[in-house]
Amino acid sequence: MTRPVFELEDIIKKIHPVDDLWIQKAKERTAQLVMPTRALGRLHDISERLCGIRRTLQPSVRHKAVLVMAADHGIVDEGVSAYPQEVTGEMVKTFLKNGAGINVISSFVGVQVRVVDVGIIPELDPGTLKGGDRLRIEKIRKATSNFAKGPAMSLQEARQSIITGFTHASELLENGVDIIGTGDMGIGNTSPSTAIGSVITGKSVRDMVGPGTGLDDQGIIKKIDAITRGIEVNRPDPENGLDILSKIGGFEIGAIAGTILAAARHQKPVVVDGFISTAGALIANSLCPVSTQYMFAGHCSEEPGHKVLLAYLGLRPILDLGMRLGEGSGGALAMNIIDAAAHVLCNVMTFAEASVSNKE
Amino acid sequence: MTRPVFELEDIIKKIHPVDDLWIQKAKERTAQLVMPTRALGRLHDISERLCGIRRTLQPSVRHKAVLVMAADHGIVDEGVSAYPQEVTGEMVKTFLKNGAGINVISSFVGVQVRVVDVGIIPELDPGTLKGGDRLRIEKIRKATSNFAKGPAMSLQEARQSIITGFTHASELLENGVDIIGTGDMGIGNTSPSTAIGSVITGKSVRDMVGPGTGLDDQGIIKKIDAITRGIEVNRPDPENGLDILSKIGGFEIGAIAGTILAAARHQKPVVVDGFISTAGALIANSLCPVSTQYMFAGHCSEEPGHKVLLAYLGLRPILDLGMRLGEGSGGALAMNIIDAAAHVLCNVMTFAEASVSNKE
Repeated sequence: MTRPVFELEDIIKKIHPVDDLWIQKAKERTAQLVMPTRALGRLHDISERLCGIRRTLQPSVRHKAVLVMAADHGIVDEGVSAYPQEVTGEMVKTFLKNGAGINVISSFVGVQVRVVDVGIIPELDPGTLKGGDRLRIEKIRKATSNFAKGPAMSLQEARQSIITGFTHASELLENGVDIIGTGDMGIGNTSPSTAIGSVITGKSVRDMVGPGTGLDDQGIIKKIDAITRGIEVNRPDPENGLDILSKIGGFEIGAIAGTILAAARHQKPVVVDGFISTAGALIANSLCPVSTQYMFAGHCSEEPGHKVLLAYLGLRPILDLGMRLGEGSGGALAMNIIDAAAHVLCNVMTFAEASVSNKE
Repeated sequence: MTRPVFELEDIIKKIHPVDDLWIQKAKERTAQLVMPTRALGRLHDISERLCGIRRTLQPSVRHKAVLVMAADHGIVDEGVSAYPQEVTGEMVKTFLKNGAGINVISSFVGVQVRVVDVGIIPELDPGTLKGGDRLRIEKIRKATSNFAKGPAMSLQEARQSIITGFTHASELLENGVDIIGTGDMGIGNTSPSTAIGSVITGKSVRDMVGPGTGLDDQGIIKKIDAITRGIEVNRPDPENGLDILSKIGGFEIGAIAGTILAAARHQKPVVVDGFISTAGALIANSLCPVSTQYMFAGHCSEEPGHKVLLAYLGLRPILDLGMRLGEGSGGALAMNIIDAAAHVLCNVMTFAEASVSNKE
């Protein structure tokens, strides 16, 4: 199968804002539903934005997918993770075995899970692995370089990571997926995410950093030091998402940004998962601010920097359950709420249909 | 069909605490799941409590029901509601037509909805109404008395409302329902709920009161005045749930308390919906503090007093989406999250099963 070849600038040019006219029409419908004014709160906001995204009063989010992007990180040489680097590949295999958190939540919600290797160290063979049909190998390179010492990747690799995400997400969206969730796997990836967040929002590394998968205090000090050095050494341009991604990012973070651009390009909603995904969302926002209109924030992560990133993007998380797994798990769970919101708009009767008296 | 006759004191005697030993076993299982320590946050807390409630490591919440209790309120004579009293009966009919918020959310989540008329003014005939098989008529009386002028009901009626809720909920729970949600319909019922909340928590009426279905400022002043007079006239004993229910309560609030006692008696989880349901939960807690261990708070209502009631009971709401519909809608939506939590505990692989390296 030959794939279309995309250019980042072309993609961005073809992304249009959400349609306010459809949001207005949806608000009129909400006002007629047989309940006190906007009594289902944020469910109404969600369903109305879905209408603006899909340009319809009957937005369906029935077919759901999460695209988990996996990659390794040179920064782990600095001792910034509680888990060994082998875990990245082992968890990818667990995803294929349907044994991880994302699998169980997705299976419960009715979400298909696809995994793309955009740069993990081990060589996995989809042809021989059970569940390998859900894995694509698109390695940019086997792990980024240690960004504490120099750029994580080249500009060309940064572009390639975004385009890879865009291409795979587009394939799903063109084949009937109504709503897509972003997911990540990569031991060490809270470090580039913190770095990206700090550079773009201007908040200090110290205020944004967290334990990731479970660092102790000593580990957090090392992590702050490594990230701070990485920003100093690389001096990324806070206004240039591609520059930031290449210098202090990760391949999966680029691919997540690409996933988001694909959703915006196809005028379909994208559910941004936790901290790492939101770093990808910051990159997408930097490249194409309008893409943010297509984003829903799935949940609020326990990683302290996540709130800062969400506030910067103007996104309010749907769930707040103290989750910090990543993998796309918070986004997958939130899809349930988004789907419920769509059902409310489409299926609750109006006052007139139900013959119920309105306010006196 | 003859129904068993229950005595409130007998019911309470047979309610036992949640089993901590099963909670401990569940925590051991959680610790082995292939993810960073407790990375799914409150989903773990929820699933572990389910294990304590059900005394098993495989708690199923597959079969779900919401029991909507409907009644009218004498206090509406004081002008405390934005909607006319007719709406109570009209909404009950809407529930049977599957047209209301609770119907649409329940149908989406996979929850059966049953409605019990414990004291609405109109006479509905389940035999002739479409969907009437989901309605039971168990009128305590056609509306409570205006509690601003004297007791809302007799002590005997208060008992009867609780027992009615207990009986109907028990029927569902004995017929395979794994998890039950409380629901309410009753124009004016934020007033008795506020009164109950104020008397039990000691917080002033002024600090707890809210717009209900949409009162303006003038209306809120009238509402504060009516509730305050109601408490002064009746002087309910803050330590006596039955006394409080009879003097300043509502029939559906008593029936909700009964629903909760039934769940606790059957060692099954109950999802308490919003403000009115939580007032019912306060009554259940007053009668039988141990019953609170079986409660999950579905969501945080926009009604300002709700947070006070939840804090009093020590419950943290699962969802916080600015909802304030009642009907059981927030509880029904939260059942989705509770079910996901159970799936995580039962179906995520352990580190050993997945052959993934644990922390270094």
